[in-house]
Amino acid sequence: MNPANHRATDEALIRGLIDDWARAIRSRDVRRVVSKYAQDVVSFDVVGPLQYVGSDGITRRAEEWVSSFRDPIGYEVRDLSIHTGDDVAFCHSLNRVNATTTTGNTIDMWWRATVCFRKIDGNWVVTHQHNSVPFDPESGKASLGLRP
Amino acid sequence: MNPANHRATDEALIRGLIDDWARAIRSRDVRRVVSKYAQDVVSFDVVGPLQYVGSDGITRRAEEWVSSFRDPIGYEVRDLSIHTGDDVAFCHSLNRVNATTTTGNTIDMWWRATVCFRKIDGNWVVTHQHNSVPFDPESGKASLGLRP
Repeated sequence: MNPANHRATDEALIRGLIDDWARAIRSRDVRRVVSKYAQDVVSFDVVGPLQYVGSDGITRRAEEWVSSFRDPIGYEVRDLSIHTGDDVAFCHSLNRVNATTTTGNTIDMWWRATVCFRKIDGNWVVTHQHNSVPFDPESGKASLGLRP
Repeated sequence: MNPANHRATDEALIRGLIDDWARAIRSRDVRRVVSKYAQDVVSFDVVGPLQYVGSDGITRRAEEWVSSFRDPIGYEVRDLSIHTGDDVAFCHSLNRVNATTTTGNTIDMWWRATVCFRKIDGNWVVTHQHNSVPFDPESGKASLGLRP
């Protein structure tokens, strides 16, 4: 394949991975969600701590997050922008969760998502992710009601 | 150069860019800070809005941020991890600002930084960055006092 074809293929693979992630979250399939992570992934998440290092911490966090919602879990990925090189890639998007917690609170929240990949043994795996909402410096509160 | 040498060179270039950024912030040189950004950079910042698109918005934000502090501006980058491919790269770190605002408030805050690069005309430029603090879901407040 020439470089342009390689790039198109890699972009399609990463788009497929992000789509599959969304489906896995909607269907509460935590095992499929965490199957995309490298063992030594470094994750900066929407809520504390500052960072998770390693896929074990992320797995526990994903299980907690998914099990905090009743069915159905609405999950949307918007403005996905993918940039691929030979064996390093990244993408960013604005993501939305729209669901009701097990305690009855309705959550409808957009956040910023950056996902970074390395190609290992021919497969794209997530070695770093960064999910967040900004905060309002006046109130010190996380800005949970922003819309793109 | 063989691929390992290329990688070492690119890692050194990106480490140099991050070091130079830190020096530029400490010396309030906003023009040098923003010289690293691609024109169409997408930035997810610590405070709102959800995103800035384009280097003009980032320039104004950098000017505001730097001018909100008295001298000296303490700025530290820790746990910098760099991953380079042929023409795509990313790095992540935990960053600290330690300074006094013009209104007399002392700020000593760590945040998470992800910086994504493309090599354009032989130079690494920042096409995406994501800076954030996590929030505490109990209080809804940004967690500004976390330490690595």
